[in-house]
Amino acid sequence: MFDFKYYTPTKVVFGRNTEGQVAELIREFGGSKVLIHYGGGSVVRSGLLKKVTDALDSADIPYVTLGGAVPNPRLSLVYEGIALCKKEGVDFLLAVGGGSAIDSAKAIGYGVTNEGDVWDFYDYKRKATACLPLGVILTLAATGSEMSDSSVITKEEGQIKRGYSSDFARAKFAIMNPELTMTLPDYQTACGCADIMMHTMERYFTNGGNMEITDSIAEGLLRTVMTNAEILVKDPKNYDARAEVMWAGSLSHNGLTGCGNDGGDWMTHKLEHELGGLYDVAHGAGLAALWGSWARYVYKDCLPRFRRFAVNVMGVEPVGADEDIALKGIEAMEAFYRRIHMPTNLRELGVNPTEAEFADMAHKCAVGVNGAKGSARLLREADMLAIYKASL
Amino acid sequence: MFDFKYYTPTKVVFGRNTEGQVAELIREFGGSKVLIHYGGGSVVRSGLLKKVTDALDSADIPYVTLGGAVPNPRLSLVYEGIALCKKEGVDFLLAVGGGSAIDSAKAIGYGVTNEGDVWDFYDYKRKATACLPLGVILTLAATGSEMSDSSVITKEEGQIKRGYSSDFARAKFAIMNPELTMTLPDYQTACGCADIMMHTMERYFTNGGNMEITDSIAEGLLRTVMTNAEILVKDPKNYDARAEVMWAGSLSHNGLTGCGNDGGDWMTHKLEHELGGLYDVAHGAGLAALWGSWARYVYKDCLPRFRRFAVNVMGVEPVGADEDIALKGIEAMEAFYRRIHMPTNLRELGVNPTEAEFADMAHKCAVGVNGAKGSARLLREADMLAIYKASL
Repeated sequence: MFDFKYYTPTKVVFGRNTEGQVAELIREFGGSKVLIHYGGGSVVRSGLLKKVTDALDSADIPYVTLGGAVPNPRLSLVYEGIALCKKEGVDFLLAVGGGSAIDSAKAIGYGVTNEGDVWDFYDYKRKATACLPLGVILTLAATGSEMSDSSVITKEEGQIKRGYSSDFARAKFAIMNPELTMTLPDYQTACGCADIMMHTMERYFTNGGNMEITDSIAEGLLRTVMTNAEILVKDPKNYDARAEVMWAGSLSHNGLTGCGNDGGDWMTHKLEHELGGLYDVAHGAGLAALWGSWARYVYKDCLPRFRRFAVNVMGVEPVGADEDIALKGIEAMEAFYRRIHMPTNLRELGVNPTEAEFADMAHKCAVGVNGAKGSARLLREADMLAIYKASL
Repeated sequence: MFDFKYYTPTKVVFGRNTEGQVAELIREFGGSKVLIHYGGGSVVRSGLLKKVTDALDSADIPYVTLGGAVPNPRLSLVYEGIALCKKEGVDFLLAVGGGSAIDSAKAIGYGVTNEGDVWDFYDYKRKATACLPLGVILTLAATGSEMSDSSVITKEEGQIKRGYSSDFARAKFAIMNPELTMTLPDYQTACGCADIMMHTMERYFTNGGNMEITDSIAEGLLRTVMTNAEILVKDPKNYDARAEVMWAGSLSHNGLTGCGNDGGDWMTHKLEHELGGLYDVAHGAGLAALWGSWARYVYKDCLPRFRRFAVNVMGVEPVGADEDIALKGIEAMEAFYRRIHMPTNLRELGVNPTEAEFADMAHKCAVGVNGAKGSARLLREADMLAIYKASL
């Protein structure tokens, strides 16, 4: 068991119509001039943005707005947001949307409160010492950014996608109304479920330090997301299922499901990261497409965990050799992906890299992790290449 | 499913020797003059208090100390602490100990930052608007006060024991070193485990609003505490078991295991409250002594939950009638209590109330809950009396 820190200061306000509390929450956390940051037109079309601006108007809280945050949020928009905040004297950020708007807002918050180029933090050159206070109205259950310390930004020049994490960027509050996620396309809902599960699975498949209470929480979370992801395939407006998935999304990535272990494996994320850099694929779908190949490549080196996963999460009967039980668990996971219409390989994802592209992804991935990474099994460039190719 | 708020801002620093970080954590949260508040002599004898004062000395953080917090912490000591803080200009509270020291510190914090008599808050006369910032070094896994919003104080005059809860009193940080709990007497360790489990069970046995993810976390937590409580009976110095129980204690009462439900039942706590007022019994042991009688009295009105508890927590085979399965679960819980040397009735607890005392406890309990309370089953004075008598 490893020592750990656990810090989740975000005040979660969960339930129907909770977006109505936005003005009072901004006041509670000291905001007096707000940047409302959002993504595409969906929050405009749904009327959510108007609801929010009406609430701020009623409460006499001045604000400016900035839309345009896209999946893999761009550095150029972050710069624009920083300039806007400085010009307008903004002291509070409100992200309305999913991970893209939230991550973009976090980067803006770093840029406003720290001297110099905000990209330095994402480029691992120096560390932030502050961030603007941030509130969230969540419209998509997936990245867990509403309670996490992390943000991922893409620099257009060279298409460099990088993450930066610090407790300064933990949201002050997160408003979570499951109804706001009901209009998502089915594919995006399923991608979100795959992403949520992977945040816990990356922490779960390790060879070090696991705590029983953490494992039992992780397993319960995974079972819950599976059950409810399947309900949402048939009944996308099911409030309870939306709520289960939404809350699981936050708990999956706020640190809870990794307490006491060695930090997790995270290689499926790293592999998907390069795939997403080369092809315009949804993050959750990319993770699902790669996971099976990763799992088959590493499971013998992390057999107790894969066996336990098979039995406690996937419901495999604990009879026979451990390796067989573990493999049945991997197969059951892939069968689940198929049931929620997620891909289990690259062809199903719709991509077909050349040999040179495989080699390029593996090389970039290895460089990105300083040569080797992985707790379930330590992977180097040749291993990464093998997993990519096996996932075709 | 009910709407909920979830707010756990406490920074948890968990692991061996983490008490060495106390000075830097106090600085991080803005403390410049500290009251170190503790209980009896054990933190003196163990050398922990000296370690803490040495750390503050080294960091040039001035402090005053106040010991003497006892189980069912007293209002008179709270008044003394308030006066001391005001005289010395204390701006940060450090509780070193278990729930008694923490709860007493929370009350001191209310008293320093709010005008008037601090007892008003515990007497439900008005609400606090602030509390001094509080840090904790935990030496006993039981009450969960290190992450909870609650505190319980006893007014000596009339022996009135009352709780008050507000987010203002959530600790800024909690240092949790499982080694600090290794020297506890076995009985106190077991009482702590019973208390921890009950914090989750009170939230679990309800007839309203349950979320699957909350239930699965609750069940995993209960199984974890049971497993490790039994390990500690035989091997009290087992670090991993101490750690599992310690972390479970915080998660059990920080709100996580009640998200989405109707707030919980809490009648076992209310019944024990009056028992503890009349007899000097350990809180965890009192809960264990009463739970079985409560469960048998209410289980038919909350059958799906009791059945689920039996199967998912106690490992009862799900065959036969639901009522039989539920009863087997209650029996299995009592068998567990016996294995960790906890009482399952009042005689085993060592008390034998008279008819008049039973009536008195039931009456006080009914008054304390404004006539009726309970989600598993709504209980009135006659029900309370019946449960007390059945627990003999």
